[in-house]
Amino acid sequence: MKAQIEATPALHPNHGLRSTPIASVMVTCADIDTITGLLTLREREPFMLYATSKIQDVLKANPIFEVLAPDVVQRKTLTLHEPIDLIDVNGHALGLTIELFSVPGKIPLYLEAAVADPAAQSQGEGTVGARISDGAGTEFFFIPGCASMTDELADRLRGAKLVLFDGTVYTDDEMIKKGVGQKTGQRMGHMSLTGDNPRLATIPAFAPLDVARKVLIHINNTNPVLLDDSPERAAVNAAGWEVSFDGMEIVL
Amino acid sequence: MKAQIEATPALHPNHGLRSTPIASVMVTCADIDTITGLLTLREREPFMLYATSKIQDVLKANPIFEVLAPDVVQRKTLTLHEPIDLIDVNGHALGLTIELFSVPGKIPLYLEAAVADPAAQSQGEGTVGARISDGAGTEFFFIPGCASMTDELADRLRGAKLVLFDGTVYTDDEMIKKGVGQKTGQRMGHMSLTGDNPRLATIPAFAPLDVARKVLIHINNTNPVLLDDSPERAAVNAAGWEVSFDGMEIVL
Repeated sequence: MKAQIEATPALHPNHGLRSTPIASVMVTCADIDTITGLLTLREREPFMLYATSKIQDVLKANPIFEVLAPDVVQRKTLTLHEPIDLIDVNGHALGLTIELFSVPGKIPLYLEAAVADPAAQSQGEGTVGARISDGAGTEFFFIPGCASMTDELADRLRGAKLVLFDGTVYTDDEMIKKGVGQKTGQRMGHMSLTGDNPRLATIPAFAPLDVARKVLIHINNTNPVLLDDSPERAAVNAAGWEVSFDGMEIVL
Repeated sequence: MKAQIEATPALHPNHGLRSTPIASVMVTCADIDTITGLLTLREREPFMLYATSKIQDVLKANPIFEVLAPDVVQRKTLTLHEPIDLIDVNGHALGLTIELFSVPGKIPLYLEAAVADPAAQSQGEGTVGARISDGAGTEFFFIPGCASMTDELADRLRGAKLVLFDGTVYTDDEMIKKGVGQKTGQRMGHMSLTGDNPRLATIPAFAPLDVARKVLIHINNTNPVLLDDSPERAAVNAAGWEVSFDGMEIVL
């Protein structure tokens, strides 16, 4: 997969001082931490901006994102379960196919006032995972936020070569116990790594799924797995999980 | 002024792991680089959010800023030329008085599509400067963006003890010459430090104003004054200007 990516010239910063190697961006939900980074990509460098209709609607409802000028950044709406070949803004194939699928999640915090039950979880176009493949049998899953392990999701991930998965919290109540917030992981729409209910706890949920390589991403700064020498890091490693880090490269 | 600030307990991070020393925030325009930082202040820590009506309207038009929950962050609209005593969300005085005044500027980039002449400069509630004082005769001016030196602004600043001022570009066309953009400083709503027209060039504009201390802020990464050993740095220093830096503290 890495070789495939490096062979794609469109991904290289090949001109000027402000170009980036970013040919396309796919956003998996409309939470602040997922979409705010788009604002730093405002130097008139072209890229494709992929998201579901529901997520594109949130971007449209916030004029601040018009800083990604439409003559430079092309927004493309993706439909769940319809794989597409990623392209750059010039129509050149990136050699990658992506398929989005819904996972349990919740409405972004800043939109909670508009709904009757802001804690309610739902499954639709608001929070998605992605299956990314090179079209030649190599593929992986990217799921930065997930509120519970459904049978459908378990079936999808079973036997996968690689899954990058929501590692927000280690225990559901850790933000409360550490005095940094009033919310559980569940209230924020995230499974916890540990817990009694295998639908809501990531390590038990993945135990029967025979995934070859499992990597935690989207890790909250309260999660003790971030500390190299913590017992919790040792525990996730013992359970077959890796903890991602800045600059991590993965070759499939 | 620094002693005044340090004597105000409300400004200290005095509880918990996610508190900040920020009791109030004042935004001087609605450009991305001015308002995006608000999104990182979303950990339910209380502060006052001050801005003119026009700038508050831009924030309201972008639901993403609802992440600053109204039960935690109080938005207060300021009127030009009406000094107010800053308070924290509990109504405690911060010991600082602020007065906003308009300076020449332009509409934020992401709102340009809505206007007939996106390059047009105007003076109103969209871009403001601030006079900040301790109520006992010590005061300074904060003007991070300014498109030209008007007679009114020159009169206001004449003889000031301290002015923090727009240092975006050294020469009007430097972004074009360095190949990082198509826009002049003027097109972005900024004076340049140097130039033939003293209305549009900061160093000549300030030369007759007898300001005791002049500090450049809001400096673009193309501006050579950022380099300690550049001739341009030497030139601005020789003209009586300081170049601000992260962690800079100023005592009046």
